[in-house]
Amino acid sequence: MPLAIRDMIAWLRGDVPPVADTVDVLLGPHDPDAPVSGAAVAFMPSIEAVERAAALGANLLIAHEGLYYSHRTPDRLPEGDPVYAFKQDLLRRSGVAVYRHHDYCHRAAPDPITLGMVRALGWKAELQRMLPAAAVLAVPAMRADEAAAHVKARLGLSGVRFAGDAAALCRRVGVLAGYRGGGGLAIPLLREERLDLIVAGEGPEWETPEYVRDAVHLGAAKAMLFIGHAESEAPGMRLVAERLRMAFPGLPVHWLDGDPALRYL
Amino acid sequence: MPLAIRDMIAWLRGDVPPVADTVDVLLGPHDPDAPVSGAAVAFMPSIEAVERAAALGANLLIAHEGLYYSHRTPDRLPEGDPVYAFKQDLLRRSGVAVYRHHDYCHRAAPDPITLGMVRALGWKAELQRMLPAAAVLAVPAMRADEAAAHVKARLGLSGVRFAGDAAALCRRVGVLAGYRGGGGLAIPLLREERLDLIVAGEGPEWETPEYVRDAVHLGAAKAMLFIGHAESEAPGMRLVAERLRMAFPGLPVHWLDGDPALRYL
Repeated sequence: MPLAIRDMIAWLRGDVPPVADTVDVLLGPHDPDAPVSGAAVAFMPSIEAVERAAALGANLLIAHEGLYYSHRTPDRLPEGDPVYAFKQDLLRRSGVAVYRHHDYCHRAAPDPITLGMVRALGWKAELQRMLPAAAVLAVPAMRADEAAAHVKARLGLSGVRFAGDAAALCRRVGVLAGYRGGGGLAIPLLREERLDLIVAGEGPEWETPEYVRDAVHLGAAKAMLFIGHAESEAPGMRLVAERLRMAFPGLPVHWLDGDPALRYL
Repeated sequence: MPLAIRDMIAWLRGDVPPVADTVDVLLGPHDPDAPVSGAAVAFMPSIEAVERAAALGANLLIAHEGLYYSHRTPDRLPEGDPVYAFKQDLLRRSGVAVYRHHDYCHRAAPDPITLGMVRALGWKAELQRMLPAAAVLAVPAMRADEAAAHVKARLGLSGVRFAGDAAALCRRVGVLAGYRGGGGLAIPLLREERLDLIVAGEGPEWETPEYVRDAVHLGAAKAMLFIGHAESEAPGMRLVAERLRMAFPGLPVHWLDGDPALRYL
């Protein structure tokens, strides 16, 4: 019996309890009972990613972020905008349904996005504790700027944004994927886990970086990196693709790698 | 008669109608009737900025962002955190009151923060329209990467984050200070003002950069820059300091320049 789209979604959701008001929706030409001809997995469902999925014969694109440049799917797309209109029509024309694997993904224990990031950083053996929204690592002592160089080399990044003391000796590192670099999560983590370094995707500039700046001014040896949202979460979505391949060996599962939208100039 | 703190706040608020639930509060040892011994103006009220204000003999620090690493002042500061505790105690010890000039500042027409950014970019003569949350410029045609180089040179930045087409010929530019680079503001502005380029402080990475990426994939010649929140708003606060100096010629008014918390590595 062929695997239906709803079966693959059920597998992705696993045993995570229902999430109220979830952003994990199926968009596009969705007959959830249609058989999956092939699955493509991407961090971002860009127009190019939808086109690549279609060209690969996949009728299901599993992506971490939203289609329409917003965390929540808009109730109505803006009128007279050719980008939204093209994208909406592309789903219809291509026959690619887009499923967002976000809330259920992050609520799995452990969160594969955090795990994928830790693994990509080459710090899986250094993982000490996996918290719901962060990983706490005990790494060999290195300066914060050495840690930044390590992160850049491991992930192939041309740059990162850095706050704090470049000479801070880092042993305890907090890893926060995606938008978890904000002060609400990262500041208590720094304090409660006695971290030397935060490695996060993105977060408001006036929150954690300013706390770290003030802490360093008082003599604390602390630092933080914003490595980019896509840069921090794509490895986790690649891990999801690997798991799908193992779970459904007869089915083509394509990992769509790609550059982040933002680069440094 | 000496100028009281409340008089200076009233001057800063000008004729802007009352803002409900404003973040523009006076924190620290605030007797609003105390005479202003001197004013210091900064983008960010870091611990160092408070110490510099005190050393300069100023008992009022006017800052654009919040004291406690959060847009809203927390109802209670976290317990057992030496950074928050030091900062709170520093206000008491130093006698420096901190006034946040944010909502009333942005609602002035024109917003001095946007105006300061346009002026710092060297594009004041190119200003075509001042909207409540953005400036629309008509600049001499230049490639997007040339515009990025112009912005970096004018503001003395070592880097910017860029999305879109580096070769896009840019004539119509939207300038959005601070956190106004999000999709809710920047995407309609791109469409309605037929912009080629957005220059913004910061914004969520999955919003405007992804819209620009998709637009470019469809053949549109568009681009955007995130130049940094502090980098985009500090010039406007410097303009506020200049105006204070002109309004109160007998009073010491200090502009506290300083590096942003984040840098590129």
